[in-house]
Amino acid sequence: MELQHFLLSLIVIYVSARVLGELAVRLGQPAVLGELLAGVLVGGSLLGLVEATQPLKLLGDIGVMLLLFEIGLESDLQSFLRVGKTAALVATIGVTAPFALGYLLGLALHMSQLQAVFVGATLTATSIAISARTLAELGRLKTAEGQIILGAAVIDDMLGLIVLSVVIGLAMSGTVSWLEVGWTAGLAVSLLIAAILVGTRYAHRISRLLSLMHVRGSLIVASVTFALTLGYLAGLLHLAPLVGAFAAGLVLARTEHQAHIGDAIKPVADVFVPIFFVLVGMAVNLRLLNPLQAENWPVLFLAGGLAIVAVLGKLAAGLGVAGGKTDRWVVGIGMLPRGEVGLIFAGTGLAQRIIGEGEYGAILLVVALTTFLSPILLKWRCARWRPLSPSA
Amino acid sequence: MELQHFLLSLIVIYVSARVLGELAVRLGQPAVLGELLAGVLVGGSLLGLVEATQPLKLLGDIGVMLLLFEIGLESDLQSFLRVGKTAALVATIGVTAPFALGYLLGLALHMSQLQAVFVGATLTATSIAISARTLAELGRLKTAEGQIILGAAVIDDMLGLIVLSVVIGLAMSGTVSWLEVGWTAGLAVSLLIAAILVGTRYAHRISRLLSLMHVRGSLIVASVTFALTLGYLAGLLHLAPLVGAFAAGLVLARTEHQAHIGDAIKPVADVFVPIFFVLVGMAVNLRLLNPLQAENWPVLFLAGGLAIVAVLGKLAAGLGVAGGKTDRWVVGIGMLPRGEVGLIFAGTGLAQRIIGEGEYGAILLVVALTTFLSPILLKWRCARWRPLSPSA
Repeated sequence: MELQHFLLSLIVIYVSARVLGELAVRLGQPAVLGELLAGVLVGGSLLGLVEATQPLKLLGDIGVMLLLFEIGLESDLQSFLRVGKTAALVATIGVTAPFALGYLLGLALHMSQLQAVFVGATLTATSIAISARTLAELGRLKTAEGQIILGAAVIDDMLGLIVLSVVIGLAMSGTVSWLEVGWTAGLAVSLLIAAILVGTRYAHRISRLLSLMHVRGSLIVASVTFALTLGYLAGLLHLAPLVGAFAAGLVLARTEHQAHIGDAIKPVADVFVPIFFVLVGMAVNLRLLNPLQAENWPVLFLAGGLAIVAVLGKLAAGLGVAGGKTDRWVVGIGMLPRGEVGLIFAGTGLAQRIIGEGEYGAILLVVALTTFLSPILLKWRCARWRPLSPSA
Repeated sequence: MELQHFLLSLIVIYVSARVLGELAVRLGQPAVLGELLAGVLVGGSLLGLVEATQPLKLLGDIGVMLLLFEIGLESDLQSFLRVGKTAALVATIGVTAPFALGYLLGLALHMSQLQAVFVGATLTATSIAISARTLAELGRLKTAEGQIILGAAVIDDMLGLIVLSVVIGLAMSGTVSWLEVGWTAGLAVSLLIAAILVGTRYAHRISRLLSLMHVRGSLIVASVTFALTLGYLAGLLHLAPLVGAFAAGLVLARTEHQAHIGDAIKPVADVFVPIFFVLVGMAVNLRLLNPLQAENWPVLFLAGGLAIVAVLGKLAAGLGVAGGKTDRWVVGIGMLPRGEVGLIFAGTGLAQRIIGEGEYGAILLVVALTTFLSPILLKWRCARWRPLSPSA
C-alpha cells in the first residue's frame, strides 16, 4: 500500500505541475512559476492531496542536484571564471546588505541582539534553483548576467556556510571561534576548487574509461553517480549538495561526451526536477497570509518589513556589477529568491528557541514571496532587456 | 544528514551494479546477473554497505515499472495477441504444475494441508522483471519465445491473484468464497483489458494533446505519468503495478510518439532500474546457505526439494508451446524466476503463522536460486538456439 500512496503522490505532482506549468507559459510566465503554484494548490494549505513525505523530499533533492548538474554541464568553466570577480563582489554585497538591513530592522523592532543577528542571517543566501531554472527557460543562462547570478549564488552558498557557523556559535556558546569558522570555510572552498581542478585534469581519462564500458546506460549512470558523489562530498563539507552536483557538471562539460551526457540527462532531470519545485510550493502556508485573522497581523507586518529589506539588499547586490553592458537589474532580480538555506537557518533558530513561531512564519513568507517574485520579474525584465551581452 | 545517507546508498548501488554488471558481460553473462550479485555483495549478508530503506525500495519499484513500461513500448500489441493462446497455456501449466508438485512435496514432508497449499502457492508466480531484462539484453525479446514468456508472465500475475485470494481465504476462515475470488479476478482482468482497449482507441488523441504542450519535457513526464497511473490502477485491483506500467507501454507503442518516448525513457529507466535489481540481490540471506551450521540443514534440504519442484514445474510449462519452430526450453527457462509475488505469499504465510521461519527461509532460497539461474541458463540456451522465429 505504501507504494500505491507514493504512486498517487507522484501522479498528482506531475499532473498539477504539467497543467499549471503549461498555463503559466500560456500566460507568458516561466513554467517554474506554474510548478510552484501547483505545489501551493496540492499542498496542505489548499487541497491537501500530497504530503511532503521523506521519499518525495529525497527525490526532490536529487531533482535539484540534477538540475544544477545539467546547468553545470552546459556551462563553460572559462567564461564562468571570467565573471568570477564580479560574481564574488555581487555575492559579498548580496550577503552583507540583507544581513545588515535585517539586523537593523530586528533591532528597530526591539528584538534581542541574537534574534536580530539570526533574522539578518536568514536573509543572506540566494536559492540557486529558482533563478537558474527561470534563466534557462528564458534562454538567458549563458549571458554574462546568467553567469554572474550563478557564480554569485554558488559563492553565496559558501558565505552562507560562514554565516551559519558564526550564528550557531553565537547561539550555542555566546561566542564565536573565528579560527574554527575560517578553517571550516577554507576547507570547503579549497576542496571544491580542488575537485574541479583534479576533475578537469582527469576528465578525459574518466571519459575514455566510460567509452570502454559495454553495458547499456553506462554513460548516464556513471554521470549521475559522479554528480551524486560530488554532491555527497559537498554535503560532507556542509555545503549544499547541489553545489557539488554543479561542480560535477562543470567538470564533465570539458569532456568529449558532454553532448551525449547532456542529451541523456535531460529526460532524467525532467522526471525529477518538477518534484522539487512542487515541494517548494507545498511548503507555503497560505493560512499565515489570511489578513482576516488578527493573530496574523504581527507576522504579516514583520514579513512585509523583512521582504522589503530582503529585496532591497539583493537589488543592491546588482550594483556590484561594474560593467556598462550588463543589466544590473537582471542580476539583482536573479539574486532575489531565498530558499533552502534560509529555511534551514530559520528552522535552527526555531529549534534553539532563539526566534518564535511568529518570526519563523514571517521568514517563511519572505522565502515564498521572493521565490514567486523572481521568476515574474525576471521574465518581465528580460522581455525589455535586449541581450547586448549574448555570451559571457 | 538523511540526504547524505541516501546519496551514499545510491552511489554504492550504482558503482557496484556498474562494476559487477560490466564484469558479468565480460564473462559472457547478462549484466543483470552482475547487478543481482552486486546486491548480494553490498547487502546485509556480506558488506552491509546499503540498507533496503523505504525510499530505496520505492525507487526500485518505480524502476521495475519503468522497465516494463519500456518493454511494453517496444512491443507490438498485435504480435503479442497472436501468441496469446500459447502464452495462456504456458501460464496455466506454469501455475498448475509447480503448485501441484509443491503441494505434494509438502504433504510428503508431513506438512499440514494448509501449509502444503501455501508452499505450493509460493512457487506459482513468475517474476517478469528478470527474464524480460535478460531477453532484452540478449536481443531476444521480440522473438516468439520472448513474446510468449512476457505474455505468460503477465497472465501468471493474474492467476497469482486468484491463487492468493484462495489461499488467504483458506488461511483466514478455512473456506473459500469462489464467487468472491471469481469476481476479484474477473474485475481485474476486464479492467486491464478495458484500459488497453480504451487507451489504444484514444492514444492518438492523447498524443495530439501532448504535441500542443510548450513546456520542455512534457512528453517524457506525461508518458511516465501515464505509466504510473495505469500501474496505480493495477495496484488498486491487487495486480502488480508493473503489469499496469506494461499495459501503458503497449498503449503508447501505437502512437506516432513511440520512438521519441522510447529515446527519452531509456536514460530514465537506466537510472532507476539498477536500484531494483540490486535490492533483489540484497534480499538474499547468505547465512542460510552456510552448510557448516547444522540448523541450516532442514532449510537447505527443503529448499533443495522445492527448487527441483519449482524448476521442473516451469520447464513443464514450456511444453505448453505447441509449435515446432519455437524453442520450448527457452520458454521454460524464461518462466523460471520467482520473485516479488512468491515473497509476498511467503511473507503473508509467515505473518499468519501458517509457515515457520524454516519454510520461509527455504522459499527465499528458491526465489534466489531461480532468479540467478534463469539469466545464466537463458544466455547459454540462446547462444545455442538459432532464432528460427525472428519476429513473433
